[in-house]
Amino acid sequence: MDEERYMKMALTLARKGWGYTSPNPMVGAVVVRDGMVIGKGWHRKVGGAHAEVNAIDDAGEYARGADLYVTLEPCNHTGRTPPCTEKILAAGIGRVFVAMVDPNPRVAGGGADYLRARGVPVVIGILEDEALRLNEIFIKHVRTGRPFVILKCAATLDGRIATRTGDARWVTGEAARAHVHHMRHGVDGILVGIGTVLSDNPSLTTRLDDVRGIDPTRIILDTRLSIPEDAKVLTVASSAGAVIAAGKSAPPEKVQRLEEKGVTVLCLPCGHDGGIDLGALMDRLGEMGITSILIEGGSRVAASALKSGIADKVMFFFAPKILGGDDGFPICRGGGPALMRDCIPVRDTTVRRFGEDVMIEAYVDYDRRA
Amino acid sequence: MDEERYMKMALTLARKGWGYTSPNPMVGAVVVRDGMVIGKGWHRKVGGAHAEVNAIDDAGEYARGADLYVTLEPCNHTGRTPPCTEKILAAGIGRVFVAMVDPNPRVAGGGADYLRARGVPVVIGILEDEALRLNEIFIKHVRTGRPFVILKCAATLDGRIATRTGDARWVTGEAARAHVHHMRHGVDGILVGIGTVLSDNPSLTTRLDDVRGIDPTRIILDTRLSIPEDAKVLTVASSAGAVIAAGKSAPPEKVQRLEEKGVTVLCLPCGHDGGIDLGALMDRLGEMGITSILIEGGSRVAASALKSGIADKVMFFFAPKILGGDDGFPICRGGGPALMRDCIPVRDTTVRRFGEDVMIEAYVDYDRRA
Repeated sequence: MDEERYMKMALTLARKGWGYTSPNPMVGAVVVRDGMVIGKGWHRKVGGAHAEVNAIDDAGEYARGADLYVTLEPCNHTGRTPPCTEKILAAGIGRVFVAMVDPNPRVAGGGADYLRARGVPVVIGILEDEALRLNEIFIKHVRTGRPFVILKCAATLDGRIATRTGDARWVTGEAARAHVHHMRHGVDGILVGIGTVLSDNPSLTTRLDDVRGIDPTRIILDTRLSIPEDAKVLTVASSAGAVIAAGKSAPPEKVQRLEEKGVTVLCLPCGHDGGIDLGALMDRLGEMGITSILIEGGSRVAASALKSGIADKVMFFFAPKILGGDDGFPICRGGGPALMRDCIPVRDTTVRRFGEDVMIEAYVDYDRRA
Repeated sequence: MDEERYMKMALTLARKGWGYTSPNPMVGAVVVRDGMVIGKGWHRKVGGAHAEVNAIDDAGEYARGADLYVTLEPCNHTGRTPPCTEKILAAGIGRVFVAMVDPNPRVAGGGADYLRARGVPVVIGILEDEALRLNEIFIKHVRTGRPFVILKCAATLDGRIATRTGDARWVTGEAARAHVHHMRHGVDGILVGIGTVLSDNPSLTTRLDDVRGIDPTRIILDTRLSIPEDAKVLTVASSAGAVIAAGKSAPPEKVQRLEEKGVTVLCLPCGHDGGIDLGALMDRLGEMGITSILIEGGSRVAASALKSGIADKVMFFFAPKILGGDDGFPICRGGGPALMRDCIPVRDTTVRRFGEDVMIEAYVDYDRRA
């Protein structure tokens, strides 16, 4: 179907915004006239022009009477830029095809209704599922105020993320690790436990070959605020800051020293398992404008993220190797259920190959939990 | 390429023999004349006619001057049936296309050379890789005298084959479990540790919907011969027998009682880890005509099979669920290496979906081990 073909182009354009649009969604648009694509645009970066505006400008005077395909309902309010609905009307666009309505509770339905009331037909729902998935981060954040959380791990086929000595260099190959850096580039925050900082001393920056990577805010779970003040996550030059989530009992003088260095220290309540209340942390991070988080380690943090209900998606890489024992670090540490049917279910599993590694990606399905 | 197309048909025919040909290989053949397939055949069961004979008989008098495509080099010796080379010559086959030479050290090269010496051109190597994989079981057994060993497990995404209580009903869904029964149907033996017998009391028979399943010989690793004499593996009616691999110190009176019931008890030396010497066991099972084994549990047996070097292939199913802790049963139990680079590598990974489950299959690559 042609409508789907044009919308697919718009979705592909939208993805070019990965890493640059937060807290806005990624949006793409094409202008089509007589079966020809005469204008293309996408939302290039937060604060910049919206996709519709770029596509209409690209089409120029030929936009009059043409069809506009856009992955998200055009906005009808003045934000950092004027409303797209006015641009569409001024350009004389004939019809508008939309993949999904704006999920923002303050916006929904506004743009389409406004256009229809002014005589422009609007069709909604072309490749809606793809659009929903494309902007899962934006949707989660505008609806709940919390970041969309991706739990990543890299394990051997027998489910070990490190050997008994903590060695994990490397579990997966280059292509898989490059994909992780692509993910870091796109998310607003990267979260690890203090254990990972102490054992690996990672810098948690984004390293990409082809484009200049954008560093995510480094977030460290550190209940007792035991982080060494010379840890790389605090000292390596980065375009993004560091946030430490500590318990209420964190020593105030250390909090002060860290904050003087530019580190944000959040002192939060602890849950019944003694760890930081991750729901409260997500609320705080969401308020700070962090719309997405990649959790990268370790085993205890992974288990807590799943059990606390904050994890939205898992991204597990399996490498073509077997540890052959149970003394290595597990994917999840802690107590599990007594019965298999009480496991945490995931849905919409997809499988991708990265070189010799296999990535299994799926959405955590808390609703279906027994 | 037409040659590959015909050979692909022959390979597909060969697979129909799965479960019926051991200790022979699966072989398929087609007879082609003027671009038309005029005869099809496969080795239907051990003791029965070879694939070439069935295909030539299917073609009848039209075989004269036609091309024969066969997945394995035609035999040139009188075994349970007369040599296929004579059948090919008598039928007046014009040319012979072969996927792979006979790997049997007593046979290799014989059939092709014999035909060429009598004026029949023979082309070898069409889709050779597929043919080698099709008959990996036969090849391993004729070359080493040992069975081809497949290590199967079914785990959660975080690598747990059961909960802390041992519950594993079920990890994977119906489609994955049906595939395991298809595997049981095809292999000569199924192997589990005594722990699995004591905790699950499985019957280890083959249950298939579409065809009558053939039960594999049930093989139990039981160093101290502690198996209950009423265990299902010993008592459930089955078309196949049971073999217990015990240590040299197994109580002779229990050995005798079990053997009187028709159970084969092998008393074998133990390795330095205190378990049965699996290499010695494989030699014995190979001598008994067992050309293939599916290992189905548990964690300690899996680790021993990998470390002892007997495992040829792994078949790991991952279910769309997460245990979320490390108190469940691991895929492998025991000590692992200190460094990630000393893991056991696997190669030629393939991924298949069974319903919502993901199967990762790969060959253990002991040669590449650091």
